[in-house]
Amino acid sequence: MASSSSSPSSNHQNPELRKDIISNRWIIFSPARSKRPSDFKSKSPIPSNPNPNHNQPCPFCIGHEHECAPEIFRVPPDGPDWNLRVIQNLYPALSRDLRFGSNHTNRSGSVLDGFGFHDVVIETPVHSVQLSDLSPREIGQVFLAHSKRIKQVASNDDIKYVQVFKNHGASAGASMSHSHSQILAVPIIPPNVSTRLESMKSYFDQNGKCCLCESQSENLLINSSTYFFSMVPFAASFPFEMWIVPQYHSAHFHELDDEKAVDLGGLLKLMLQKMSLQLNNPPFNFMIHTSPLHANESELAYTHWFIQIVPQLSGIAGFEMGTGCYINPVFPEDAAKVLREVNVAE
Amino acid sequence: MASSSSSPSSNHQNPELRKDIISNRWIIFSPARSKRPSDFKSKSPIPSNPNPNHNQPCPFCIGHEHECAPEIFRVPPDGPDWNLRVIQNLYPALSRDLRFGSNHTNRSGSVLDGFGFHDVVIETPVHSVQLSDLSPREIGQVFLAHSKRIKQVASNDDIKYVQVFKNHGASAGASMSHSHSQILAVPIIPPNVSTRLESMKSYFDQNGKCCLCESQSENLLINSSTYFFSMVPFAASFPFEMWIVPQYHSAHFHELDDEKAVDLGGLLKLMLQKMSLQLNNPPFNFMIHTSPLHANESELAYTHWFIQIVPQLSGIAGFEMGTGCYINPVFPEDAAKVLREVNVAE
Repeated sequence: MASSSSSPSSNHQNPELRKDIISNRWIIFSPARSKRPSDFKSKSPIPSNPNPNHNQPCPFCIGHEHECAPEIFRVPPDGPDWNLRVIQNLYPALSRDLRFGSNHTNRSGSVLDGFGFHDVVIETPVHSVQLSDLSPREIGQVFLAHSKRIKQVASNDDIKYVQVFKNHGASAGASMSHSHSQILAVPIIPPNVSTRLESMKSYFDQNGKCCLCESQSENLLINSSTYFFSMVPFAASFPFEMWIVPQYHSAHFHELDDEKAVDLGGLLKLMLQKMSLQLNNPPFNFMIHTSPLHANESELAYTHWFIQIVPQLSGIAGFEMGTGCYINPVFPEDAAKVLREVNVAE
Repeated sequence: MASSSSSPSSNHQNPELRKDIISNRWIIFSPARSKRPSDFKSKSPIPSNPNPNHNQPCPFCIGHEHECAPEIFRVPPDGPDWNLRVIQNLYPALSRDLRFGSNHTNRSGSVLDGFGFHDVVIETPVHSVQLSDLSPREIGQVFLAHSKRIKQVASNDDIKYVQVFKNHGASAGASMSHSHSQILAVPIIPPNVSTRLESMKSYFDQNGKCCLCESQSENLLINSSTYFFSMVPFAASFPFEMWIVPQYHSAHFHELDDEKAVDLGGLLKLMLQKMSLQLNNPPFNFMIHTSPLHANESELAYTHWFIQIVPQLSGIAGFEMGTGCYINPVFPEDAAKVLREVNVAE
């Protein structure tokens, strides 16, 4: 049996299926055959010493604003010396110029006009600076920019949900290497969001409590800050997937205030540094999971926003595409232990 | 607007959201900005002229059977000259040796012992031969081997679903280049399968008919054979995704008989040849979507198996991971037209 060769330091010798309360999806945990959890490394790391082309100016660099799609706002608001800019995506997935049409259904399915907003947050004016190089306060500014833009699009009743995400590295989907994140405001509640809401509601109905308020567990904890904690989820879909969760109950990410934003910036910075050190600077994605914009009072009681960080260590293949069920070679408790113990020099 | 530069031959200038009856998930169709549908090509094609290492013997090659995990059966059944072999996976995701345990639930979620069968079908004894190089009859033999193995594991009441899939090319998840497919028998109904069943049931309840029996559409059709047709689904998740669907109603793939298997082999071969010619020999996955093993009478009326083929042209990124909602740059009608018109020399 392959599993007999798994790490002797791990308690997990046999495969196991787990389903967590938040995503309500079965994940197959299959002990890493030849590798110990601490041996996982990215095979296509992002160079930490930028290559010569890495500092070539690009449209996101300061002084090249005219090469970009229109600006929505900048921070600070006036003058040429900006820290970050929120701009329209030059190649938007949805169109802000379409009038919102009605949902019509034919024999094959349903169709909706592609109305929405697709924006980009340029996180730094300097090409070679990565998000994890910024200070907690500067990362906090990025989160506050996401939050401000969500509040702006929320005034449009046809926008139902806003997905904030970051693709870092070409193989994680980033077409520009200059540090940026994206905001895509959509006219539907996406499938993962509906599933999550139903599942969190079911826990609340049974237990009278928000399941994420209850989710702190010693074995899965990585780090804590004043207002947040980071953990590996009980049924992580991907090896070394991490969540950052507010310790206070909050349904909507865009309720974030200045003080909490700086604190969140510090914990995200620490997680990105740990991931980079432990996993060899992998490409990664992060997603801010929040609640639908027009959530009602009862939904606010059981939904709780969080950030999911996924290092890209392996792609998904036929089994995952076919079933929607992921195979994760690293048990969450083992990943959490490895990440807890990474020593980041201050 | 980026979409203004899309192909003048396409009627699709604006983004659109679609949800089909089978998967019941919204997909964002966003016209390919700078590319016409016919310009999509793989950026990491699989070499069609094998490099020198490509013909090195590997454990899947004839004569190297002793380097593999135990054999389950071979075709033909006796003697050293086999056409295909079904063997255990040396690194199984689930363990056939575990006793099936009960499902227990704790504060974080549910846990199930990782019982299951994970097998490999070596599709040819020759290292340099690809599935699409085989004759329709030989490809039919591969499908009949899948079918036979499904019937074997179906005798175990704890196995609820069997996912047959193929990963072709390293970036599509194949760890061995020798042509093979995989069979993973799982003790749960996977999430995509439950969602599909619910959605097909809902159509059946409203219309009294199986939605896949009704799904032939001139604009989406690629090719037909005696018993099957190939199409691009109305809400394809991926550019140039293709389905092969039985023209006759059938809930379970493993009901396939010899004559239909050869016919299916011919149509799959044609689709793989067209994909390779049109898209520059891309890595790909295919998945056989069937019904749960122990489906009841009423489920058999509205479920209908099919094969999904997905060329790997772009990875999934933060938006897709976060929302479960895919962005497809090629409208299905455009992809179907391109694929219909590929001229495969006989």
